[in-house]
Amino acid sequence: MCVGLDSDILKIPKHLLDTSDPIFSFNKEIIDTTAEFSVAYKPNLAFYESLGWQGWQSLEKTVKYVREKNPDIFLIADAKRGDIGNTSNLYARAFFETLDFDAVTVAPYMGEDSVKPFMTYPEKWVILLALTSNKGAFDFQFLKDETTGDLLFETVLKTSQSWGNTENMMYVVGATKAEKLKEIREIVPDHFLLVPGVGAQGGSLREVAQNGLNSRCGLLVNSSRGIIYASEDVDFAEKAGEAAKEVQMEMEILLQEGGLL
Amino acid sequence: MCVGLDSDILKIPKHLLDTSDPIFSFNKEIIDTTAEFSVAYKPNLAFYESLGWQGWQSLEKTVKYVREKNPDIFLIADAKRGDIGNTSNLYARAFFETLDFDAVTVAPYMGEDSVKPFMTYPEKWVILLALTSNKGAFDFQFLKDETTGDLLFETVLKTSQSWGNTENMMYVVGATKAEKLKEIREIVPDHFLLVPGVGAQGGSLREVAQNGLNSRCGLLVNSSRGIIYASEDVDFAEKAGEAAKEVQMEMEILLQEGGLL
Repeated sequence: MCVGLDSDILKIPKHLLDTSDPIFSFNKEIIDTTAEFSVAYKPNLAFYESLGWQGWQSLEKTVKYVREKNPDIFLIADAKRGDIGNTSNLYARAFFETLDFDAVTVAPYMGEDSVKPFMTYPEKWVILLALTSNKGAFDFQFLKDETTGDLLFETVLKTSQSWGNTENMMYVVGATKAEKLKEIREIVPDHFLLVPGVGAQGGSLREVAQNGLNSRCGLLVNSSRGIIYASEDVDFAEKAGEAAKEVQMEMEILLQEGGLL
Repeated sequence: MCVGLDSDILKIPKHLLDTSDPIFSFNKEIIDTTAEFSVAYKPNLAFYESLGWQGWQSLEKTVKYVREKNPDIFLIADAKRGDIGNTSNLYARAFFETLDFDAVTVAPYMGEDSVKPFMTYPEKWVILLALTSNKGAFDFQFLKDETTGDLLFETVLKTSQSWGNTENMMYVVGATKAEKLKEIREIVPDHFLLVPGVGAQGGSLREVAQNGLNSRCGLLVNSSRGIIYASEDVDFAEKAGEAAKEVQMEMEILLQEGGLL
C-alpha cells in the first residue's frame, strides 16, 4: 500500500495550524502511525505548491523524515510533469537530486524526449500516466487510433514500453477503471502499476486485485483521503493508522487469495 | 514577444554565483534590459524546482519584481500541470493566489476536470498544450482518431474550446511545427496562441507569422535561450536586451506586413 500525502492546509486539523510548519507536522504524525502498514508514500505536489516556497520546504522535510524513518520506503513525487527533453532534465534533477524521491509521475502527451530524462538515473522510476481515475480520462484517453485500432491509453502503454524496462517504469491506472485492468495486464504483464482512486474516488480494491495482480504482485495501490483524513480531530494520526491497517489487511487477504502470500 | 526565463543555475554567468540569490539576480538584470521590448515573461518551473524551495523563492521574487516593474506585463507559469479536478484546484491556488501569475500552461491528457479549475479565476488564463515543439510531439499528438479523422492535437483543440472562451484560454503551438499553424487557425481562429520554439529549437518567426496571425495578432511568440543566454559574460543583460530588441523589431516588420501595425 501507498499512502498519498495530499496534505491540504485547509483540511488538516485546526490545532496544527499553531505549529511552525503545519503541513510537515501533519505528515510527520501520519507517517509515524502508518509507516508499518505502508511500502510507499506519495506526496502530491499540488498541495505543497499551493503554499509556495514554504510548501516546498514542508515537502523537503517530509522526504527527509521518511528517509530517516525507514530507508526502504518507496517515495513517489506525484507531480505529473513532462516537458521538452532539455527541460525534463531539470525536473529529473529536482526530484532525484535536489529531493531524494525514488519515482516521479509523468504525463505522456509530449512523448519520448519528455519522459526519458527521468530514466537516466539508476534505480529511479518513471510512473507514466496511462489511464487516469478521473472523469476527464474519457475526453482523450479512449480515442481510437485509425491505424492500429488501439485506444490512446493502449498506445501510450505500447509505445512507451520501448523507452524503458520493468525496472524503471510503472504506469498509472486508476482504480475507477478497474474493469480495464485485465486488458492492460495483457499489454504490460510485468510492469508495476500505481493504482490511485481507491476510497474517496470510488474504486474497488477487490476488483483491482482480481484484474491487476501479476506473479510478483505488480500493484501499488494508493489511498489518500481515506487514510489521512480519517479524522479531522486531534486523533487524526491514530485514526489514519487504523484506516491504513484496515486497508493493508484487506490487501493481505486479496494477496492470499491470489496465492501471493 | 514573450521572454522565457529558463534560468539554469549551471548556465548563468559565473560572477552571479557569489550573490545571495543567483537566479533572482540573473532574472532581475534580464528583466531590466528586456522589459521595454516584451509584453510577457514565462518562467519555466523546472528550472526553479531544480533548486528546491530556494528555487521557488527565486521564482516568487521574480514574479514580484516583474509586477513592480510594470503591472501590465503578462506573466506565464510554464508549468505544464494537470491533475484530477480536486488537485488541479490546488495548482490553480498555487499559481493564481499564492503566486500572482496571469496564466499557467496545462497538459491536456487528463481532460476537462483537470483543466477547468484554472478557469474559475477571473482574468486568469489556461494555456493548453496542443502541438508541442519537441520531437516527442510525433509520438501521440499526430494519432488519427478513427471516428472523426482528427489528429489528437486537433481533437484537443476542438474538444477543449467548449471548456472556456477566447478570453481565458490559449493554446501552445510549437514554432517548429509552423506549417501546421494555418490549419490550426481554421480550428481556433480567435484564440491566442503561445508559440515556443523560435531560436534555439529552430522555428522560423516569419513562417509562424505568415501562418498564425489573426486580426488581433493572436500570437505570443516566446524566445528563451536565444535571449537570456545571448552572452555568458558580465555583459549578459546588455546582450539579452539587444537580442530582445532584435526579435521585437523583426516582429514589428512582420506585423506591418500583416497589416496589423
